[in-house]
Amino acid sequence: MGNYDMKPEKIERTSFDIIDQEAGPHEFENSQWSIVRRMIHTTADFEFMDSVRFHPQAVAAGIKAIHRGKTIITDTNMARVGIRDRDLTQFGVTLKCHMNDPGIRDKAASNGTTRAQAAVDVALEDMHDGIYVVGNAPTALMRLIELIKENQAHPALVVGLPVGFVNAAESKAALMELDYPYISNMGRKGGSNLAASVVNALIVLAKGKGQKA
Amino acid sequence: MGNYDMKPEKIERTSFDIIDQEAGPHEFENSQWSIVRRMIHTTADFEFMDSVRFHPQAVAAGIKAIHRGKTIITDTNMARVGIRDRDLTQFGVTLKCHMNDPGIRDKAASNGTTRAQAAVDVALEDMHDGIYVVGNAPTALMRLIELIKENQAHPALVVGLPVGFVNAAESKAALMELDYPYISNMGRKGGSNLAASVVNALIVLAKGKGQKA
Repeated sequence: MGNYDMKPEKIERTSFDIIDQEAGPHEFENSQWSIVRRMIHTTADFEFMDSVRFHPQAVAAGIKAIHRGKTIITDTNMARVGIRDRDLTQFGVTLKCHMNDPGIRDKAASNGTTRAQAAVDVALEDMHDGIYVVGNAPTALMRLIELIKENQAHPALVVGLPVGFVNAAESKAALMELDYPYISNMGRKGGSNLAASVVNALIVLAKGKGQKA
Repeated sequence: MGNYDMKPEKIERTSFDIIDQEAGPHEFENSQWSIVRRMIHTTADFEFMDSVRFHPQAVAAGIKAIHRGKTIITDTNMARVGIRDRDLTQFGVTLKCHMNDPGIRDKAASNGTTRAQAAVDVALEDMHDGIYVVGNAPTALMRLIELIKENQAHPALVVGLPVGFVNAAESKAALMELDYPYISNMGRKGGSNLAASVVNALIVLAKGKGQKA
Protein backbone atom coordinates (compact mmCIF):
# COMPACT_ATOMS: atom_id res chain seq x y z
CA MET A 1 0.00 0.00 0.00
CA GLY A 2 3.00 2.26 0.36
CA ASN A 3 3.22 5.36 2.43
CA TYR A 4 -0.01 7.01 3.43
CA ASP A 5 1.28 9.54 5.91
CA MET A 6 0.06 12.49 3.90
CA LYS A 7 -1.62 15.33 5.76
CA PRO A 8 -5.22 16.12 4.74
CA GLU A 9 -4.25 19.52 3.28
CA LYS A 10 -1.53 17.85 1.21
CA ILE A 11 -3.96 15.18 -0.01
CA GLU A 12 -6.39 17.87 -1.14
CA ARG A 13 -3.70 19.94 -2.86
CA THR A 14 -2.29 16.89 -4.62
CA SER A 15 -5.79 15.85 -5.71
CA PHE A 16 -6.49 19.29 -7.15
CA ASP A 17 -3.17 19.19 -9.04
CA ILE A 18 -4.08 15.82 -10.55
CA ILE A 19 -7.53 17.11 -11.54
CA ASP A 20 -6.06 20.27 -13.12
CA GLN A 21 -3.61 18.15 -15.08
CA GLU A 22 -6.10 15.54 -16.30
CA ALA A 23 -8.86 18.05 -17.02
CA GLY A 24 -6.77 19.92 -19.55
CA PRO A 25 -7.97 23.18 -21.09
CA HIS A 26 -11.46 24.45 -20.29
CA GLU A 27 -13.44 27.66 -20.51
CA PHE A 28 -14.55 28.12 -16.92
CA GLU A 29 -13.65 31.34 -15.12
CA ASN A 30 -11.31 30.80 -12.17
CA SER A 31 -14.03 30.96 -9.52
CA GLN A 32 -16.28 28.63 -11.50
CA TRP A 33 -13.42 26.20 -12.02
CA SER A 34 -12.68 26.10 -8.30
CA ILE A 35 -16.26 24.87 -7.88
CA VAL A 36 -16.22 22.35 -10.74
CA ARG A 37 -12.83 21.06 -9.57
CA ARG A 38 -14.21 20.40 -6.11
CA MET A 39 -17.21 18.59 -7.65
CA ILE A 40 -14.77 16.34 -9.51
CA HIS A 41 -12.72 15.91 -6.33
CA THR A 42 -15.86 14.70 -4.51
CA THR A 43 -17.01 12.27 -7.20
CA ALA A 44 -13.89 11.39 -9.21
CA ASP A 45 -16.15 12.00 -12.19
CA PHE A 46 -14.84 14.29 -14.93
CA GLU A 47 -18.22 14.21 -16.66
CA PHE A 48 -19.19 17.23 -14.55
CA MET A 49 -16.78 19.32 -16.64
CA ASP A 50 -19.27 19.01 -19.48
CA SER A 51 -22.55 18.93 -17.57
CA VAL A 52 -22.27 21.74 -15.01
CA ARG A 53 -23.99 25.04 -15.78
CA PHE A 54 -23.65 28.38 -14.02
CA HIS A 55 -26.07 31.25 -14.25
CA PRO A 56 -23.85 34.31 -14.88
CA GLN A 57 -24.66 35.82 -11.45
CA ALA A 58 -24.51 32.55 -9.53
CA VAL A 59 -21.02 32.62 -8.01
CA ALA A 60 -21.21 36.27 -6.97
CA ALA A 61 -24.68 35.70 -5.49
CA GLY A 62 -23.48 32.71 -3.48
CA ILE A 63 -20.45 34.53 -2.10
CA LYS A 64 -22.57 37.55 -1.23
CA ALA A 65 -25.10 35.39 0.65
CA ILE A 66 -22.27 33.93 2.73
CA HIS A 67 -20.68 37.33 3.38
CA ARG A 68 -24.07 38.64 4.51
CA GLY A 69 -24.50 35.72 6.94
CA LYS A 70 -27.69 34.46 5.32
CA THR A 71 -29.10 30.95 5.76
CA ILE A 72 -28.07 27.89 3.77
CA ILE A 73 -30.89 25.34 3.51
CA THR A 74 -30.34 21.80 2.26
CA ASP A 75 -32.88 19.22 1.13
CA THR A 76 -31.08 16.38 2.93
CA ASN A 77 -29.22 15.92 6.16
CA MET A 78 -26.41 14.33 4.13
CA ALA A 79 -25.85 17.61 2.31
CA ARG A 80 -26.10 19.55 5.57
CA VAL A 81 -23.42 17.52 7.37
CA GLY A 82 -21.26 17.54 4.23
CA ILE A 83 -20.96 21.32 4.40
CA ARG A 84 -18.00 22.55 6.44
CA ASP A 85 -19.93 24.44 9.08
CA ARG A 86 -16.84 25.35 11.09
CA ASP A 87 -15.92 27.77 8.33
CA LEU A 88 -19.39 29.33 8.32
CA THR A 89 -19.31 30.57 11.90
CA GLN A 90 -17.12 33.54 11.03
CA PHE A 91 -19.75 34.73 8.57
CA GLY A 92 -22.70 34.14 10.89
CA VAL A 93 -24.25 31.76 8.35
CA THR A 94 -26.78 29.23 9.66
CA LEU A 95 -27.12 25.79 8.09
CA LYS A 96 -30.56 24.20 8.11
CA CYS A 97 -32.37 21.12 6.86
CA HIS A 98 -36.07 20.81 7.55
CA MET A 99 -36.46 17.13 6.55
CA ASN A 100 -36.75 15.92 10.14
CA ASP A 101 -38.69 18.88 11.51
CA PRO A 102 -41.67 17.87 13.60
CA GLY A 103 -44.71 18.00 11.38
CA ILE A 104 -42.95 17.61 8.03
CA ARG A 105 -43.81 13.93 7.75
CA ASP A 106 -47.49 14.59 8.55
CA LYS A 107 -47.62 17.59 6.21
CA ALA A 108 -46.15 15.52 3.39
CA ALA A 109 -48.47 12.60 4.08
CA SER A 110 -51.59 14.75 4.21
CA ASN A 111 -50.65 16.61 1.01
CA GLY A 112 -49.47 13.45 -0.72
CA THR A 113 -46.05 14.97 -1.39
CA THR A 114 -42.49 14.01 -0.51
CA ARG A 115 -41.02 15.31 2.74
CA ALA A 116 -38.41 17.20 0.70
CA GLN A 117 -41.19 19.04 -1.09
CA ALA A 118 -43.02 19.86 2.15
CA ALA A 119 -39.72 21.12 3.57
CA VAL A 120 -39.47 23.79 0.86
CA ASP A 121 -42.75 25.38 1.91
CA VAL A 122 -41.68 25.85 5.52
CA ALA A 123 -38.39 27.50 4.48
CA LEU A 124 -39.73 30.51 2.60
CA GLU A 125 -38.51 33.07 5.15
CA ASP A 126 -35.24 31.32 5.94
CA MET A 127 -34.21 31.09 2.32
CA HIS A 128 -34.66 34.83 1.66
CA ASP A 129 -31.33 36.09 0.19
CA GLY A 130 -29.80 32.77 1.28
CA ILE A 131 -28.79 29.61 -0.57
CA TYR A 132 -31.20 26.72 -1.23
CA VAL A 133 -29.34 23.47 -1.89
CA VAL A 134 -31.05 20.51 -3.55
CA GLY A 135 -28.81 17.46 -3.84
CA ASN A 136 -31.33 14.71 -3.84
CA ALA A 137 -35.01 15.40 -4.38
CA PRO A 138 -36.35 16.56 -7.77
CA THR A 139 -39.68 17.18 -6.03
CA ALA A 140 -38.01 19.79 -3.80
CA LEU A 141 -36.43 21.52 -6.77
CA MET A 142 -39.68 21.54 -8.73
CA ARG A 143 -41.57 23.03 -5.78
CA LEU A 144 -38.85 25.66 -5.35
CA ILE A 145 -39.07 26.61 -9.05
CA GLU A 146 -42.85 27.03 -8.71
CA LEU A 147 -42.42 29.30 -5.71
CA ILE A 148 -39.76 31.38 -7.47
CA LYS A 149 -42.01 31.78 -10.51
CA GLU A 150 -44.87 32.83 -8.23
CA ASN A 151 -42.55 35.39 -6.65
CA GLN A 152 -42.96 33.76 -3.23
CA ALA A 153 -39.44 32.34 -2.84
CA HIS A 154 -36.40 34.62 -2.99
CA PRO A 155 -33.17 32.72 -2.42
CA ALA A 156 -30.00 34.50 -3.57
CA LEU A 157 -28.81 31.27 -5.20
CA VAL A 158 -30.23 27.85 -6.01
CA VAL A 159 -27.79 24.95 -6.02
CA GLY A 160 -29.86 22.46 -7.98
CA LEU A 161 -28.20 19.07 -8.25
CA PRO A 162 -30.81 16.36 -7.63
CA VAL A 163 -29.86 12.88 -8.78
CA GLY A 164 -31.89 10.08 -10.22
CA PHE A 165 -34.12 8.53 -12.80
CA VAL A 166 -37.47 10.20 -12.15
CA ASN A 167 -37.61 13.93 -12.87
CA ALA A 168 -34.04 14.78 -11.81
CA ALA A 169 -32.90 15.85 -15.29
CA GLU A 170 -36.28 17.44 -16.00
CA SER A 171 -36.29 19.50 -12.80
CA LYS A 172 -32.78 20.77 -13.54
CA ALA A 173 -33.72 21.65 -17.11
CA ALA A 174 -36.63 23.68 -15.71
CA LEU A 175 -34.27 25.44 -13.28
CA MET A 176 -31.88 26.33 -16.08
CA GLU A 177 -34.70 27.92 -18.05
CA LEU A 178 -35.06 30.55 -15.34
CA ASP A 179 -33.07 33.76 -15.42
CA TYR A 180 -32.23 33.29 -11.76
CA PRO A 181 -28.88 32.59 -10.05
CA TYR A 182 -28.36 28.82 -10.15
CA ILE A 183 -25.58 26.24 -10.20
CA SER A 184 -26.85 23.05 -11.77
CA ASN A 185 -26.01 20.34 -14.28
CA MET A 186 -27.46 18.53 -17.25
CA GLY A 187 -28.64 14.95 -16.88
CA ARG A 188 -29.37 12.45 -14.15
CA LYS A 189 -26.21 12.71 -12.08
CA GLY A 190 -26.05 14.78 -8.92
CA GLY A 191 -26.14 14.05 -5.22
CA SER A 192 -25.99 15.37 -1.68
CA ASN A 193 -22.21 15.00 -1.58
CA LEU A 194 -21.92 16.89 -4.86
CA ALA A 195 -24.23 19.67 -3.67
CA ALA A 196 -22.26 19.99 -0.43
CA SER A 197 -19.03 20.26 -2.42
CA VAL A 198 -20.42 23.24 -4.34
CA VAL A 199 -21.23 25.05 -1.11
CA ASN A 200 -17.81 24.18 0.32
CA ALA A 201 -16.18 25.68 -2.76
CA LEU A 202 -18.28 28.83 -2.33
CA ILE A 203 -17.17 29.05 1.31
CA VAL A 204 -13.52 28.88 0.24
CA LEU A 205 -14.20 31.64 -2.31
CA ALA A 206 -16.00 33.73 0.33
CA LYS A 207 -13.05 33.37 2.70
CA GLY A 208 -10.59 34.25 -0.04
CA LYS A 209 -12.44 37.40 -0.98
CA GLY A 210 -12.77 38.58 2.61
CA GLN A 211 -15.83 39.96 4.32
CA LYS A 212 -17.55 42.71 2.43
CA ALA A 213 -20.07 44.97 4.06
CA MET B 1 -42.39 20.31 -15.55
CA GLY B 2 -45.44 18.10 -15.70
CA ASN B 3 -46.91 16.17 -12.86
CA TYR B 4 -44.66 15.45 -9.92
CA ASP B 5 -47.21 14.12 -7.49
CA MET B 6 -45.57 10.73 -7.23
CA LYS B 7 -45.22 9.15 -3.79
CA PRO B 8 -41.65 8.38 -2.63
CA GLU B 9 -42.21 4.61 -2.77
CA LYS B 10 -43.52 4.92 -6.32
CA ILE B 11 -40.52 7.07 -7.33
CA GLU B 12 -38.14 4.43 -5.98
CA ARG B 13 -39.97 1.55 -7.64
CA THR B 14 -40.10 3.39 -10.96
CA SER B 15 -36.40 4.23 -10.68
CA PHE B 16 -35.50 0.59 -10.03
CA ASP B 17 -37.57 -0.49 -13.04
CA ILE B 18 -35.71 1.99 -15.25
CA ILE B 19 -32.35 0.79 -13.93
CA ASP B 20 -33.28 -2.88 -14.48
CA GLN B 21 -34.34 -2.09 -18.02
CA GLU B 22 -31.30 0.01 -18.96
CA ALA B 23 -28.81 -2.25 -17.21
CA GLY B 24 -29.71 -5.23 -19.34
CA PRO B 25 -28.30 -8.70 -18.60
CA HIS B 26 -25.71 -9.12 -15.86
CA GLU B 27 -24.19 -11.86 -13.76
CA PHE B 28 -24.89 -10.62 -10.26
CA GLU B 29 -26.85 -12.84 -7.86
CA ASN B 30 -30.20 -11.35 -6.85
CA SER B 31 -29.02 -10.06 -3.48
CA GLN B 32 -25.87 -8.57 -5.03
CA TRP B 33 -27.91 -6.92 -7.75
CA SER B 34 -30.23 -5.32 -5.21
CA ILE B 35 -27.12 -3.65 -3.80
CA VAL B 36 -25.60 -2.61 -7.13
CA ARG B 37 -28.97 -1.33 -8.29
CA ARG B 38 -29.25 0.89 -5.25
CA MET B 39 -25.71 2.17 -5.87
CA ILE B 40 -26.78 3.14 -9.40
CA HIS B 41 -29.98 4.66 -8.00
CA THR B 42 -27.90 6.87 -5.69
CA THR B 43 -25.40 8.03 -8.31
CA ALA B 44 -27.16 7.61 -11.68
CA ASP B 45 -23.88 6.04 -12.72
CA PHE B 46 -24.04 2.66 -14.47
CA GLU B 47 -20.26 2.37 -14.33
CA PHE B 48 -20.69 0.66 -10.95
CA MET B 49 -22.09 -2.38 -12.77
CA ASP B 50 -18.58 -3.02 -14.01
CA SER B 51 -16.52 -1.79 -11.09
CA VAL B 52 -18.23 -3.25 -8.00
CA ARG B 53 -16.71 -6.35 -6.41
CA PHE B 54 -18.18 -8.63 -3.76
CA HIS B 55 -16.24 -11.03 -1.62
CA PRO B 56 -18.26 -14.31 -1.81
CA GLN B 57 -19.25 -14.12 1.88
CA ALA B 58 -19.91 -10.36 1.92
CA VAL B 59 -23.68 -10.13 1.57
CA ALA B 60 -24.39 -12.95 4.03
CA ALA B 61 -21.93 -11.44 6.51
CA GLY B 62 -23.56 -8.03 6.27
CA ILE B 63 -27.07 -9.39 6.75
CA LYS B 64 -25.92 -11.50 9.70
CA ALA B 65 -24.30 -8.49 11.38
CA ILE B 66 -27.58 -6.58 11.10
CA HIS B 67 -29.65 -9.52 12.35
CA ARG B 68 -27.31 -9.84 15.33
CA GLY B 69 -27.70 -6.15 16.18
CA LYS B 70 -24.02 -5.35 15.81
CA THR B 71 -22.59 -1.87 15.28
CA ILE B 72 -22.27 -0.09 11.95
CA ILE B 73 -19.39 2.39 11.94
CA THR B 74 -18.91 4.97 9.20
CA ASP B 75 -15.87 7.08 8.36
CA THR B 76 -17.97 10.20 7.73
CA ASN B 77 -21.03 11.80 9.22
CA MET B 78 -22.42 12.06 5.70
CA ALA B 79 -22.45 8.26 5.40
CA ARG B 80 -23.92 7.96 8.91
CA VAL B 81 -26.87 10.25 8.23
CA GLY B 82 -27.38 8.65 4.80
CA ILE B 83 -28.14 5.31 6.43
CA ARG B 84 -31.82 4.75 7.21
CA ASP B 85 -31.51 4.38 10.94
CA ARG B 86 -35.24 4.08 11.51
CA ASP B 87 -35.07 0.63 9.98
CA LEU B 88 -32.17 -0.39 12.19
CA THR B 89 -33.98 0.02 15.49
CA GLN B 90 -35.86 -3.25 15.10
CA PHE B 91 -32.55 -5.09 14.88
CA GLY B 92 -30.92 -3.24 17.76
CA VAL B 93 -28.14 -2.03 15.47
CA THR B 94 -26.22 1.08 16.55
CA LEU B 95 -24.84 3.55 14.02
CA LYS B 96 -21.62 5.34 14.90
CA CYS B 97 -19.14 7.77 13.42
CA HIS B 98 -16.12 8.75 15.51
CA MET B 99 -14.93 11.65 13.32
CA ASN B 100 -16.16 14.31 15.75
CA ASP B 101 -15.39 12.44 18.97
CA PRO B 102 -13.57 14.57 21.52
CA GLY B 103 -9.89 13.84 21.23
CA ILE B 104 -9.90 12.57 17.63
CA ARG B 105 -8.60 15.84 16.24
CA ASP B 106 -5.78 16.00 18.81
CA LYS B 107 -4.95 12.32 18.32
CA ALA B 108 -4.75 12.81 14.56
CA ALA B 109 -2.66 15.97 14.92
CA SER B 110 -0.20 14.43 17.35
CA ASN B 111 0.22 11.29 15.21
CA GLY B 112 0.29 13.27 11.96
CA THR B 113 -2.60 11.26 10.53
CA THR B 114 -6.04 12.10 9.21
CA ARG B 115 -8.95 12.16 11.63
CA ALA B 116 -10.56 9.32 9.66
CA GLN B 117 -7.48 7.19 10.30
CA ALA B 118 -7.42 8.04 14.02
CA ALA B 119 -11.12 7.17 14.18
CA VAL B 120 -10.41 3.58 13.08
CA ASP B 121 -8.16 2.97 16.07
CA VAL B 122 -10.79 3.97 18.61
CA ALA B 123 -13.41 1.70 17.02
CA LEU B 124 -11.71 -1.67 17.44
CA GLU B 125 -14.21 -3.01 19.97
CA ASP B 126 -17.28 -1.48 18.36
CA MET B 127 -16.53 -2.92 14.96
CA HIS B 128 -16.25 -6.51 16.24
CA ASP B 129 -18.66 -8.61 14.12
CA GLY B 130 -20.15 -5.34 12.86
CA ILE B 131 -19.85 -3.40 9.61
CA TYR B 132 -17.11 -0.84 8.96
CA VAL B 133 -18.10 1.60 6.22
CA VAL B 134 -15.51 3.73 4.41
CA GLY B 135 -17.05 6.09 1.87
CA ASN B 136 -14.50 8.84 1.84
CA ALA B 137 -11.07 8.37 3.37
CA PRO B 138 -8.49 6.04 1.82
CA THR B 139 -6.39 6.59 4.96
CA ALA B 140 -9.16 5.02 7.06
CA LEU B 141 -9.41 2.01 4.77
CA MET B 142 -5.64 1.51 4.71
CA ARG B 143 -5.46 1.65 8.50
CA LEU B 144 -8.35 -0.82 8.74
CA ILE B 145 -6.59 -3.23 6.37
CA GLU B 146 -3.45 -3.05 8.50
CA LEU B 147 -5.43 -3.85 11.64
CA ILE B 148 -7.22 -6.75 9.94
CA LYS B 149 -3.90 -8.17 8.75
CA GLU B 150 -2.50 -7.83 12.28
CA ASN B 151 -5.55 -9.71 13.56
CA GLN B 152 -6.55 -6.74 15.72
CA ALA B 153 -9.70 -5.68 13.83
CA HIS B 154 -12.57 -8.12 13.31
CA PRO B 155 -15.49 -6.52 11.49
CA ALA B 156 -17.96 -8.95 9.91
CA LEU B 157 -17.92 -6.87 6.72
CA VAL B 158 -15.93 -4.01 5.26
CA VAL B 159 -17.77 -1.67 2.90
CA GLY B 160 -14.77 -0.05 1.25
CA LEU B 161 -15.76 2.69 -1.17
CA PRO B 162 -13.43 5.67 -0.65
CA VAL B 163 -13.38 8.19 -3.47
CA GLY B 164 -10.62 10.31 -4.88
CA PHE B 165 -7.32 10.84 -6.56
CA VAL B 166 -4.83 10.00 -3.83
CA ASN B 167 -4.78 6.33 -2.72
CA ALA B 168 -8.51 5.65 -3.15
CA ALA B 169 -8.07 3.08 -5.93
CA GLU B 170 -4.93 1.73 -4.27
CA SER B 171 -6.58 1.24 -0.89
CA LYS B 172 -9.50 -0.60 -2.50
CA ALA B 173 -7.14 -2.81 -4.50
CA ALA B 174 -5.43 -3.72 -1.23
CA LEU B 175 -8.79 -4.51 0.38
CA MET B 176 -9.76 -6.77 -2.52
CA GLU B 177 -6.53 -8.73 -2.11
CA LEU B 178 -7.73 -9.89 1.30
CA ASP B 179 -9.78 -13.03 1.70
CA TYR B 180 -12.14 -11.13 3.99
CA PRO B 181 -15.80 -10.14 3.51
CA TYR B 182 -15.82 -6.86 1.59
CA ILE B 183 -17.97 -4.86 -0.81
CA SER B 184 -15.79 -2.52 -2.84
CA ASN B 185 -15.10 -1.25 -6.33
CA MET B 186 -12.28 -0.75 -8.77
CA GLY B 187 -11.03 2.74 -9.49
CA ARG B 188 -11.34 6.23 -8.09
CA LYS B 189 -15.09 6.55 -7.78
CA GLY B 190 -16.90 6.01 -4.50
CA GLY B 191 -18.40 8.26 -1.87
CA SER B 192 -20.27 8.58 1.38
CA ASN B 193 -23.62 8.56 -0.41
CA LEU B 194 -22.61 5.41 -2.29
CA ALA B 195 -21.42 3.68 0.88
CA ALA B 196 -24.65 4.57 2.66
CA SER B 197 -26.64 3.12 -0.25
CA VAL B 198 -24.86 -0.22 0.15
CA VAL B 199 -25.80 -0.36 3.82
CA ASN B 200 -29.39 0.65 3.03
CA ALA B 201 -29.60 -2.19 0.52
CA LEU B 202 -28.27 -4.60 3.16
CA ILE B 203 -30.93 -3.37 5.60
CA VAL B 204 -33.66 -4.09 3.03
CA LEU B 205 -32.20 -7.57 2.52
CA ALA B 206 -32.02 -8.12 6.29
CA LYS B 207 -35.67 -7.12 6.66
CA GLY B 208 -36.70 -9.37 3.78
CA LYS B 209 -34.96 -12.40 5.22
CA GLY B 210 -36.40 -11.90 8.71
CA GLN B 211 -34.59 -12.07 11.98
CA LYS B 212 -32.50 -15.18 12.45
CA ALA B 213 -31.26 -16.28 15.83
